[in-house]
Amino acid sequence: MILLNGKKTAADIKEEITLEVRELKDNGHKTPHLAAIIVGNNGASITYVNAKVKACERVGFESTLIRLTEKVTEDDLLNEIAILNIDNDIDGFIVQLPLPKHIDEQKVLMAVNPDKDVDGFHPTNVGKMALNLPTFISATPFGILELLDRYNVETSGKHVVVLGRSHIVGSPMSILLSQKRKVGNATVTMCHSRTKNLKELTLQADIIIAAIGIPEFLKADMVKNNVTVIDVGITRLPDSSKKSGFRLVGDVAFEEVSKKSEFITPVPGGVGPMTIAMLLKNTLLASKRNF
Amino acid sequence: MILLNGKKTAADIKEEITLEVRELKDNGHKTPHLAAIIVGNNGASITYVNAKVKACERVGFESTLIRLTEKVTEDDLLNEIAILNIDNDIDGFIVQLPLPKHIDEQKVLMAVNPDKDVDGFHPTNVGKMALNLPTFISATPFGILELLDRYNVETSGKHVVVLGRSHIVGSPMSILLSQKRKVGNATVTMCHSRTKNLKELTLQADIIIAAIGIPEFLKADMVKNNVTVIDVGITRLPDSSKKSGFRLVGDVAFEEVSKKSEFITPVPGGVGPMTIAMLLKNTLLASKRNF
Repeated sequence: MILLNGKKTAADIKEEITLEVRELKDNGHKTPHLAAIIVGNNGASITYVNAKVKACERVGFESTLIRLTEKVTEDDLLNEIAILNIDNDIDGFIVQLPLPKHIDEQKVLMAVNPDKDVDGFHPTNVGKMALNLPTFISATPFGILELLDRYNVETSGKHVVVLGRSHIVGSPMSILLSQKRKVGNATVTMCHSRTKNLKELTLQADIIIAAIGIPEFLKADMVKNNVTVIDVGITRLPDSSKKSGFRLVGDVAFEEVSKKSEFITPVPGGVGPMTIAMLLKNTLLASKRNF
Repeated sequence: MILLNGKKTAADIKEEITLEVRELKDNGHKTPHLAAIIVGNNGASITYVNAKVKACERVGFESTLIRLTEKVTEDDLLNEIAILNIDNDIDGFIVQLPLPKHIDEQKVLMAVNPDKDVDGFHPTNVGKMALNLPTFISATPFGILELLDRYNVETSGKHVVVLGRSHIVGSPMSILLSQKRKVGNATVTMCHSRTKNLKELTLQADIIIAAIGIPEFLKADMVKNNVTVIDVGITRLPDSSKKSGFRLVGDVAFEEVSKKSEFITPVPGGVGPMTIAMLLKNTLLASKRNF
């Protein structure tokens, strides 16, 4: 069993980006600049957006954090976006989700200039992804592709079973992995809450992408030997034996499934750490497009 | 075995559109108007675009056909598109493919105003489709959804196997049928040239969408009893017994597969006739959006 170590891989990628940024600067190019808009005081969102800002600083990017109050109007938020859209110093920016209920999330995502949409959430970028055109692939799917690539996990001709059809993970993964691309050319089965005989399908899988948000859903009796498992789930379960009072659990019963696996991502330390690294990579890409 | 009669269904849809157009006009609304650009003298393209224009006339739409010579420059074509983009009388328009080699097809498709892109080929519309947002779904996938819907073919929880990952049929079908929508909620397996053990997969399918362009590829021994088969293929095979000297053949060995099928589309007269009907439907939708 080989661990797909997202923590280490993400660190490698950040190191590569750091070197590239240094080179860019040495060659007189502008410093890549990521902006993030955050609305309100959601603790998890603040933690996450701060981690993104900090990651920017570490690799040598400039970063701008725009904090808006919970009560900001949709118009004012759209106005902030319009400013970032035309600010030539900003290469890419993100609007941290979720947004307060009085704001139409889809309308906001549609307002972002697709060329600066380093989250890859704008329909134009989702469409380019689906058409296998160059674009910003959103961080989680991009991170999974990168992990599979760096560990030389063969996907061509393999049967991939994707669990969960979310727009941010399951659906794009099923699209990407079936495409004619380096990490791709797989036969992909997209499963979700309406799927019957799920176990019959997972038992056929060479690779399983679990992204349903049900802790330890995938058990050892649902997979065949030498399966490769990508665990996208992350849930806090109460655990009195831990100082923090909780432990982080994925969608996969790691202990038992790992024994049958060829490759498997741990939780935490698997897919999670890859997302920020890929956001940085998209920002670098945006900045390089600009010259 | 029930034939999914695309010819009849398309006629029904055109009749419904005719009535709706009459009502629109009676209520003082403008007549829906479709424009088509065709470049060069490709016989099949001309036949096809003429059929679209004629269909417009039959349902009471206005139509405009713009014929450009094979030698038109990319800039001149883009200029024609720019004019249609801002012409308020044109609700939707299409650029008939393929284009001559000196013209960048992707660049041309990207130039079409997404709100007038009734072919649904612009990345923004492909992305909206993938995100299950309201948009123009391109004619062939839209027609297949409509056929399944009108014959009450249950898709929810069914295992759909899609053969062929083209951007115009296989890929969008696999996305659409796995979504939470009326004709959807299926477990979808996307197969293509790199798929191994294809027969193992087709034998599990409740519904097969065949879109690979290999005549009579799908045989009876590859399907289970009571399968539903959608045949998107259409190939001309020489046939001296026919006056025309050829016969049209789908991707499915109809004679033998139909015996095991619950529902099946014939070729010709199945998916084919639906496409023009759905183009009209998209144009009507575009015109209704405009008021």
